[in-house]
Amino acid sequence: MSTTDRRTGRRPGNSGSRAAILDAASARFAGHGYDGATIRGIAADAGVDPALVHHFFGTKERLFIATMRLPLEPATLIPELLAPGVEGLGERLARHFLRLMRELGEANPMIALIRSAAAHPDAARMFREFYTRAVLERLAAELDTSRPQLRAALCASQILGLAVARFIIGLRPLLDADDETMVAAFAPALQHYLVGDWLTGDLPS
Amino acid sequence: MSTTDRRTGRRPGNSGSRAAILDAASARFAGHGYDGATIRGIAADAGVDPALVHHFFGTKERLFIATMRLPLEPATLIPELLAPGVEGLGERLARHFLRLMRELGEANPMIALIRSAAAHPDAARMFREFYTRAVLERLAAELDTSRPQLRAALCASQILGLAVARFIIGLRPLLDADDETMVAAFAPALQHYLVGDWLTGDLPS
Repeated sequence: MSTTDRRTGRRPGNSGSRAAILDAASARFAGHGYDGATIRGIAADAGVDPALVHHFFGTKERLFIATMRLPLEPATLIPELLAPGVEGLGERLARHFLRLMRELGEANPMIALIRSAAAHPDAARMFREFYTRAVLERLAAELDTSRPQLRAALCASQILGLAVARFIIGLRPLLDADDETMVAAFAPALQHYLVGDWLTGDLPS
Repeated sequence: MSTTDRRTGRRPGNSGSRAAILDAASARFAGHGYDGATIRGIAADAGVDPALVHHFFGTKERLFIATMRLPLEPATLIPELLAPGVEGLGERLARHFLRLMRELGEANPMIALIRSAAAHPDAARMFREFYTRAVLERLAAELDTSRPQLRAALCASQILGLAVARFIIGLRPLLDADDETMVAAFAPALQHYLVGDWLTGDLPS
Protein backbone atom coordinates (compact mmCIF):
# COMPACT_ATOMS: atom_id res chain seq x y z
CA MET A 1 0.00 0.00 0.00
CA SER A 2 1.29 3.48 -0.83
CA THR A 3 1.11 6.36 1.63
CA THR A 4 -1.35 8.10 -0.64
CA ASP A 5 -3.79 5.23 -0.33
CA ARG A 6 -3.62 5.35 3.44
CA ARG A 7 -4.17 9.10 3.58
CA THR A 8 -7.00 9.35 1.09
CA GLY A 9 -8.61 6.04 1.88
CA ARG A 10 -8.76 5.50 -1.88
CA ARG A 11 -8.94 1.90 -2.90
CA PRO A 12 -6.12 0.54 -4.96
CA GLY A 13 -7.11 -2.24 -7.42
CA ASN A 14 -9.34 -4.93 -5.93
CA SER A 15 -6.73 -7.68 -6.05
CA GLY A 16 -4.19 -5.37 -4.42
CA SER A 17 -6.61 -4.55 -1.58
CA ARG A 18 -7.51 -8.19 -1.16
CA ALA A 19 -3.88 -9.22 -0.88
CA ALA A 20 -3.14 -6.34 1.50
CA ILE A 21 -6.06 -7.38 3.72
CA LEU A 22 -4.92 -11.01 3.77
CA ASP A 23 -1.37 -9.98 4.67
CA ALA A 24 -2.59 -7.67 7.41
CA ALA A 25 -4.98 -10.35 8.71
CA SER A 26 -2.24 -12.96 8.76
CA ALA A 27 -0.02 -10.71 10.87
CA ARG A 28 -2.87 -9.58 13.19
CA PHE A 29 -4.18 -13.10 13.83
CA ALA A 30 -0.65 -14.29 14.63
CA GLY A 31 0.15 -11.33 16.86
CA HIS A 32 -3.18 -10.75 18.62
CA GLY A 33 -4.76 -14.20 18.44
CA TYR A 34 -8.11 -14.88 16.84
CA ASP A 35 -10.07 -13.23 19.64
CA GLY A 36 -7.84 -10.16 19.84
CA ALA A 37 -7.72 -9.41 16.11
CA THR A 38 -10.44 -7.05 14.86
CA ILE A 39 -11.68 -6.23 11.37
CA ARG A 40 -11.08 -2.57 12.20
CA GLY A 41 -7.43 -3.22 13.16
CA ILE A 42 -6.82 -5.38 10.13
CA ALA A 43 -8.38 -2.76 7.85
CA ALA A 44 -6.15 -0.06 9.39
CA ASP A 45 -3.03 -2.17 8.86
CA ALA A 46 -4.06 -2.83 5.27
CA GLY A 47 -4.86 0.85 4.69
CA VAL A 48 -8.45 0.16 3.64
CA ASP A 49 -11.88 0.91 5.01
CA PRO A 50 -13.33 -1.78 7.35
CA ALA A 51 -16.37 -1.90 5.04
CA LEU A 52 -14.14 -3.19 2.27
CA VAL A 53 -12.95 -6.05 4.50
CA HIS A 54 -16.57 -6.97 5.20
CA HIS A 55 -17.38 -6.61 1.51
CA PHE A 56 -14.62 -9.02 0.49
CA PHE A 57 -14.74 -11.53 3.35
CA GLY A 58 -17.95 -11.10 5.32
CA THR A 59 -17.23 -12.06 8.93
CA LYS A 60 -13.97 -12.28 10.87
CA GLU A 61 -14.46 -16.03 10.84
CA ARG A 62 -14.53 -16.12 7.05
CA LEU A 63 -11.54 -13.80 6.86
CA PHE A 64 -9.61 -16.19 9.10
CA ILE A 65 -10.60 -19.14 6.92
CA ALA A 66 -9.46 -17.29 3.79
CA THR A 67 -6.21 -16.20 5.45
CA MET A 68 -5.35 -19.72 6.60
CA ARG A 69 -6.74 -21.29 3.40
CA LEU A 70 -8.77 -23.67 5.56
CA PRO A 71 -10.64 -26.20 3.46
CA LEU A 72 -13.86 -25.97 5.47
CA GLU A 73 -16.28 -23.48 6.91
CA PRO A 74 -17.75 -24.49 10.27
CA ALA A 75 -20.63 -22.00 9.90
CA THR A 76 -22.05 -24.04 7.02
CA LEU A 77 -20.51 -27.45 7.74
CA ILE A 78 -21.91 -27.89 11.25
CA PRO A 79 -25.56 -27.18 10.38
CA GLU A 80 -25.16 -29.38 7.29
CA LEU A 81 -23.84 -32.31 9.34
CA LEU A 82 -26.51 -31.83 12.00
CA ALA A 83 -29.47 -31.30 9.64
CA PRO A 84 -30.43 -34.97 9.17
CA GLY A 85 -30.47 -35.43 12.98
CA VAL A 86 -28.04 -37.08 15.35
CA GLU A 87 -28.44 -40.52 13.84
CA GLY A 88 -25.49 -41.14 11.56
CA LEU A 89 -23.76 -37.94 12.69
CA GLY A 90 -20.49 -39.73 13.53
CA GLU A 91 -20.47 -41.37 10.14
CA ARG A 92 -21.15 -38.11 8.27
CA LEU A 93 -18.36 -36.42 10.22
CA ALA A 94 -15.94 -39.29 9.55
CA ARG A 95 -16.77 -39.33 5.83
CA HIS A 96 -16.36 -35.59 5.55
CA PHE A 97 -12.87 -35.52 7.06
CA LEU A 98 -11.65 -38.67 5.40
CA ARG A 99 -12.66 -37.34 1.99
CA LEU A 100 -11.00 -34.01 2.75
CA MET A 101 -7.80 -35.78 3.79
CA ARG A 102 -7.88 -37.99 0.72
CA GLU A 103 -8.41 -35.02 -1.62
CA LEU A 104 -5.86 -32.69 -0.06
CA GLY A 105 -3.15 -35.20 0.87
CA GLU A 106 0.08 -33.57 2.02
CA ALA A 107 -1.23 -30.15 0.92
CA ASN A 108 -3.86 -30.21 3.69
CA PRO A 109 -3.69 -26.78 5.41
CA MET A 110 -4.66 -28.56 8.64
CA ILE A 111 -1.22 -30.17 8.66
CA ALA A 112 0.50 -26.82 8.15
CA LEU A 113 -1.56 -25.46 11.05
CA ILE A 114 -0.56 -28.35 13.33
CA ARG A 115 3.11 -27.93 12.41
CA SER A 116 2.87 -24.24 13.04
CA ALA A 117 1.07 -24.72 16.38
CA ALA A 118 3.74 -27.24 17.42
CA ALA A 119 6.49 -24.70 16.75
CA HIS A 120 4.89 -21.39 17.82
CA PRO A 121 2.70 -20.77 20.88
CA ASP A 122 1.12 -17.79 19.08
CA ALA A 123 -0.06 -20.04 16.26
CA ALA A 124 -1.40 -22.51 18.80
CA ARG A 125 -3.38 -19.78 20.55
CA MET A 126 -4.77 -18.51 17.25
CA PHE A 127 -5.84 -22.03 16.25
CA ARG A 128 -7.33 -22.73 19.71
CA GLU A 129 -9.32 -19.49 19.82
CA PHE A 130 -10.67 -19.94 16.30
CA TYR A 131 -11.59 -23.55 16.98
CA THR A 132 -13.28 -22.66 20.25
CA ARG A 133 -15.44 -19.90 18.69
CA ALA A 134 -16.13 -21.45 15.30
CA VAL A 135 -16.58 -25.09 16.26
CA LEU A 136 -16.93 -25.75 20.00
CA GLU A 137 -19.26 -22.85 20.83
CA ARG A 138 -21.31 -23.27 17.66
CA LEU A 139 -21.78 -26.95 18.29
CA ALA A 140 -22.58 -26.24 21.92
CA ALA A 141 -25.43 -24.05 20.71
CA GLU A 142 -26.80 -26.60 18.26
CA LEU A 143 -26.15 -30.00 19.82
CA ASP A 144 -28.78 -30.92 22.37
CA THR A 145 -26.71 -32.97 24.79
CA SER A 146 -24.64 -32.72 27.95
CA ARG A 147 -21.18 -31.13 27.64
CA PRO A 148 -21.27 -30.51 23.90
CA GLN A 149 -17.91 -28.70 23.94
CA LEU A 150 -16.16 -31.69 25.48
CA ARG A 151 -17.84 -33.95 22.93
CA ALA A 152 -16.77 -31.76 20.01
CA ALA A 153 -13.23 -31.52 21.40
CA LEU A 154 -13.03 -35.32 21.62
CA CYS A 155 -13.92 -35.56 17.93
CA ALA A 156 -11.33 -32.90 17.17
CA SER A 157 -8.72 -34.88 19.09
CA GLN A 158 -9.40 -37.97 16.97
CA ILE A 159 -9.35 -36.06 13.69
CA LEU A 160 -6.20 -34.16 14.68
CA GLY A 161 -4.64 -37.42 15.79
CA LEU A 162 -5.36 -39.06 12.44
CA ALA A 163 -3.76 -36.12 10.62
CA VAL A 164 -0.68 -36.33 12.88
CA ALA A 165 -0.39 -40.11 12.66
CA ARG A 166 -0.79 -40.15 8.88
CA PHE A 167 1.00 -37.04 7.71
CA ILE A 168 3.42 -36.07 10.46
CA ILE A 169 4.49 -39.47 11.83
CA GLY A 170 3.56 -41.42 8.70
CA LEU A 171 2.12 -44.58 10.25
CA ARG A 172 1.75 -47.00 7.36
CA PRO A 173 -1.40 -48.91 8.40
CA LEU A 174 -3.35 -45.63 8.60
CA LEU A 175 -2.07 -44.44 5.23
CA ASP A 176 -2.85 -47.78 3.58
CA ALA A 177 -6.39 -48.30 4.90
CA ASP A 178 -9.13 -47.32 2.47
CA ASP A 179 -11.78 -44.79 3.41
CA GLU A 180 -14.55 -47.36 3.96
CA THR A 181 -12.39 -49.19 6.50
CA MET A 182 -11.59 -45.93 8.23
CA VAL A 183 -15.26 -44.93 8.28
CA ALA A 184 -16.09 -48.29 9.87
CA ALA A 185 -13.45 -47.57 12.53
CA PHE A 186 -14.25 -43.91 13.20
CA ALA A 187 -18.01 -43.56 12.70
CA PRO A 188 -19.00 -45.44 15.89
CA ALA A 189 -16.22 -43.79 17.92
CA LEU A 190 -17.22 -40.28 16.85
CA GLN A 191 -20.89 -41.11 17.33
CA HIS A 192 -20.08 -42.29 20.86
CA TYR A 193 -18.14 -39.08 21.59
CA LEU A 194 -20.93 -36.87 20.21
CA VAL A 195 -24.11 -38.45 21.49
CA GLY A 196 -23.15 -41.48 23.61
CA ASP A 197 -24.52 -41.92 27.13
CA TRP A 198 -21.10 -42.17 28.73
CA LEU A 199 -21.38 -38.95 30.72
CA THR A 200 -24.11 -40.49 32.87
CA GLY A 201 -21.58 -42.90 34.28
CA ASP A 202 -22.72 -45.82 32.09
CA LEU A 203 -19.78 -47.36 30.31
CA PRO A 204 -20.94 -48.78 26.98
CA SER A 205 -19.01 -51.97 26.29
CA MET B 1 35.42 -39.16 25.02
CA SER B 2 39.12 -38.39 24.85
CA THR B 3 41.29 -39.65 21.99
CA THR B 4 43.11 -41.96 24.39
CA ASP B 5 39.86 -43.68 25.31
CA ARG B 6 39.04 -44.27 21.66
CA ARG B 7 42.48 -45.66 20.86
CA THR B 8 42.84 -47.97 23.82
CA GLY B 9 39.20 -48.88 24.13
CA ARG B 10 39.60 -48.29 27.85
CA ARG B 11 36.41 -47.43 29.64
CA PRO B 12 36.17 -44.03 31.24
CA GLY B 13 34.04 -43.84 34.37
CA ASN B 14 30.65 -45.52 34.08
CA SER B 15 28.70 -42.31 34.06
CA GLY B 16 30.99 -40.88 31.36
CA SER B 17 30.49 -43.95 29.18
CA ARG B 18 26.78 -43.90 29.75
CA ALA B 19 26.51 -40.26 28.74
CA ALA B 20 28.74 -40.84 25.70
CA ILE B 21 26.54 -43.76 24.60
CA LEU B 22 23.37 -41.70 25.00
CA ASP B 23 24.89 -38.83 22.99
CA ALA B 24 26.03 -41.18 20.26
CA ALA B 25 22.66 -42.95 20.22
CA SER B 26 20.79 -39.67 19.98
CA ALA B 27 22.82 -38.63 16.92
CA ARG B 28 22.64 -42.08 15.27
CA PHE B 29 18.89 -42.49 15.76
CA ALA B 30 18.32 -39.02 14.31
CA GLY B 31 20.67 -39.53 11.38
CA HIS B 32 20.01 -43.17 10.49
CA GLY B 33 16.51 -43.69 11.79
CA TYR B 34 15.58 -46.35 14.34
CA ASP B 35 15.94 -49.20 11.88
CA GLY B 36 19.25 -47.98 10.46
CA ALA B 37 20.98 -47.30 13.77
CA THR B 38 22.95 -50.24 15.20
CA ILE B 39 24.36 -50.92 18.64
CA ARG B 40 27.72 -51.52 16.93
CA GLY B 41 27.66 -48.13 15.20
CA ILE B 42 26.55 -46.33 18.34
CA ALA B 43 29.30 -48.05 20.36
CA ALA B 44 31.90 -47.02 17.76
CA ASP B 45 30.72 -43.39 17.87
CA ALA B 46 30.85 -43.44 21.67
CA GLY B 47 34.29 -45.06 21.67
CA VAL B 48 33.15 -48.05 23.75
CA ASP B 49 32.74 -51.76 23.21
CA PRO B 50 29.29 -52.86 21.96
CA ALA B 51 29.14 -55.21 24.95
CA LEU B 52 29.14 -52.19 27.24
CA VAL B 53 26.12 -50.75 25.42
CA HIS B 54 24.30 -54.06 25.91
CA HIS B 55 25.43 -54.14 29.53
CA PHE B 56 24.03 -50.69 30.25
CA PHE B 57 20.91 -50.71 28.10
CA GLY B 58 20.07 -54.24 27.00
CA THR B 59 18.37 -54.04 23.62
CA LYS B 60 18.35 -51.31 20.97
CA GLU B 61 14.72 -50.73 21.92
CA ARG B 62 15.64 -50.01 25.52
CA LEU B 63 18.52 -47.81 24.42
CA PHE B 64 16.09 -45.79 22.29
CA ILE B 65 13.69 -45.45 25.22
CA ALA B 66 16.51 -44.25 27.48
CA THR B 67 17.80 -41.84 24.82
CA MET B 68 14.36 -40.30 24.24
CA ARG B 69 13.46 -40.52 27.94
CA LEU B 70 10.20 -42.21 26.96
CA PRO B 71 7.98 -42.84 29.96
CA LEU B 72 6.96 -46.35 28.87
CA GLU B 73 8.41 -49.60 27.66
CA PRO B 74 6.23 -51.38 25.10
CA ALA B 75 8.05 -54.69 25.70
CA THR B 76 6.61 -54.87 29.20
CA LEU B 77 3.55 -52.63 28.83
CA ILE B 78 1.88 -54.54 25.99
CA PRO B 79 1.99 -57.99 27.64
CA GLU B 80 0.85 -56.35 30.89
CA LEU B 81 -2.17 -54.74 29.23
CA LEU B 82 -3.03 -57.95 27.35
CA ALA B 83 -2.52 -60.36 30.25
CA PRO B 84 -6.06 -60.15 31.70
CA GLY B 85 -7.52 -60.86 28.23
CA VAL B 86 -9.18 -58.62 25.68
CA GLU B 87 -12.09 -57.72 27.92
CA GLY B 88 -11.42 -54.29 29.38
CA LEU B 89 -8.33 -53.81 27.19
CA GLY B 90 -9.52 -50.42 25.90
CA GLU B 91 -10.15 -49.24 29.44
CA ARG B 92 -6.75 -50.41 30.71
CA LEU B 93 -5.07 -48.65 27.77
CA ALA B 94 -7.07 -45.45 28.34
CA ARG B 95 -6.28 -45.45 32.07
CA HIS B 96 -2.61 -46.05 31.46
CA PHE B 97 -2.18 -43.10 29.08
CA LEU B 98 -4.44 -40.74 30.97
CA ARG B 99 -2.50 -41.37 34.17
CA LEU B 100 0.79 -40.87 32.32
CA MET B 101 -0.44 -37.58 30.85
CA ARG B 102 -1.71 -36.42 34.22
CA GLU B 103 1.57 -37.25 35.97
CA LEU B 104 3.90 -35.83 33.33
CA GLY B 105 1.89 -32.78 32.24
CA GLU B 106 3.82 -30.45 29.95
CA ALA B 107 7.04 -32.38 30.63
CA ASN B 108 5.67 -35.41 28.76
CA PRO B 109 8.45 -36.54 26.39
CA MET B 110 5.73 -37.64 23.97
CA ILE B 111 4.95 -33.97 23.38
CA ALA B 112 8.60 -33.18 22.69
CA LEU B 113 8.64 -36.07 20.23
CA ILE B 114 5.53 -34.81 18.41
CA ARG B 115 6.98 -31.29 18.22
CA SER B 116 10.22 -32.66 16.92
CA ALA B 117 8.48 -34.90 14.36
CA ALA B 118 6.40 -31.93 13.18
CA ALA B 119 9.56 -29.90 12.55
CA HIS B 120 12.03 -32.54 11.29
CA PRO B 121 11.31 -35.41 8.87
CA ASP B 122 14.26 -37.33 10.36
CA ALA B 123 12.65 -37.24 13.79
CA ALA B 124 9.34 -38.33 12.27
CA ARG B 125 11.02 -41.32 10.58
CA MET B 126 12.78 -42.29 13.81
CA PHE B 127 9.51 -42.12 15.74
CA ARG B 128 7.60 -44.03 13.06
CA GLU B 129 10.18 -46.82 12.81
CA PHE B 130 10.42 -47.23 16.58
CA TYR B 131 6.65 -47.25 16.94
CA THR B 132 6.25 -49.76 14.13
CA ARG B 133 8.79 -52.21 15.60
CA ALA B 134 8.10 -51.73 19.28
CA VAL B 135 4.32 -51.36 19.27
CA LEU B 136 2.62 -52.28 15.99
CA GLU B 137 4.61 -55.44 15.23
CA ARG B 138 4.62 -56.59 18.84
CA LEU B 139 0.90 -56.14 19.15
CA ALA B 140 0.41 -57.85 15.79
CA ALA B 141 2.17 -60.87 17.24
CA GLU B 142 0.15 -60.93 20.45
CA LEU B 143 -3.33 -59.72 19.50
CA ASP B 144 -5.47 -62.46 18.01
CA THR B 145 -7.58 -60.45 15.60
CA SER B 146 -7.71 -59.24 12.00
CA ARG B 147 -5.40 -56.36 11.04
CA PRO B 148 -3.83 -55.84 14.46
CA GLN B 149 -1.40 -53.21 13.15
CA LEU B 150 -4.23 -51.04 11.85
CA ARG B 151 -6.04 -51.48 15.17
CA ALA B 152 -2.98 -50.47 17.17
CA ALA B 153 -2.34 -47.51 14.86
CA LEU B 154 -5.93 -46.31 15.39
CA CYS B 155 -5.36 -46.32 19.16
CA ALA B 156 -2.09 -44.47 18.62
CA SER B 157 -3.91 -41.86 16.53
CA GLN B 158 -6.39 -41.21 19.35
CA ILE B 159 -3.70 -41.02 22.03
CA LEU B 160 -1.49 -38.79 19.87
CA GLY B 161 -4.51 -36.65 19.07
CA LEU B 162 -5.31 -36.17 22.74
CA ALA B 163 -1.72 -35.12 23.42
CA VAL B 164 -1.85 -32.63 20.53
CA ALA B 165 -5.28 -31.27 21.43
CA ARG B 166 -4.38 -30.87 25.10
CA PHE B 167 -0.78 -29.78 25.09
CA ILE B 168 -0.07 -28.34 21.64
CA ILE B 169 -3.40 -26.69 20.76
CA GLY B 170 -4.58 -26.37 24.35
CA LEU B 171 -8.28 -27.19 23.95
CA ARG B 172 -9.85 -26.27 27.27
CA PRO B 173 -12.61 -28.90 27.53
CA LEU B 174 -10.01 -31.69 27.19
CA LEU B 175 -7.72 -30.11 29.76
CA ASP B 176 -10.57 -29.58 32.21
CA ALA B 177 -12.18 -33.02 32.02
CA ASP B 178 -11.22 -35.37 34.84
CA ASP B 179 -9.67 -38.75 34.16
CA GLU B 180 -12.84 -40.74 34.91
CA THR B 181 -14.76 -38.74 32.32
CA MET B 182 -11.98 -39.26 29.80
CA VAL B 183 -11.87 -42.99 30.53
CA ALA B 184 -15.62 -43.16 29.94
CA ALA B 185 -15.07 -41.44 26.58
CA PHE B 186 -12.01 -43.34 25.41
CA ALA B 187 -12.36 -46.86 26.82
CA PRO B 188 -15.20 -47.92 24.48
CA ALA B 189 -13.59 -46.19 21.47
CA LEU B 190 -10.22 -47.88 22.03
CA GLN B 191 -11.94 -51.21 22.74
CA HIS B 192 -13.79 -50.84 19.43
CA TYR B 193 -10.56 -50.05 17.56
CA LEU B 194 -8.73 -53.00 19.16
CA VAL B 195 -11.25 -55.81 19.15
CA GLY B 196 -14.45 -54.53 17.51
CA ASP B 197 -16.10 -56.42 14.66
CA TRP B 198 -16.02 -53.45 12.30
CA LEU B 199 -13.60 -55.03 9.83
CA THR B 200 -16.21 -57.65 8.91
CA GLY B 201 -18.39 -54.91 7.53
CA ASP B 202 -20.66 -54.74 10.60
CA LEU B 203 -21.02 -51.20 11.83
CA PRO B 204 -21.68 -51.17 15.58
CA SER B 205 -24.05 -48.36 16.37
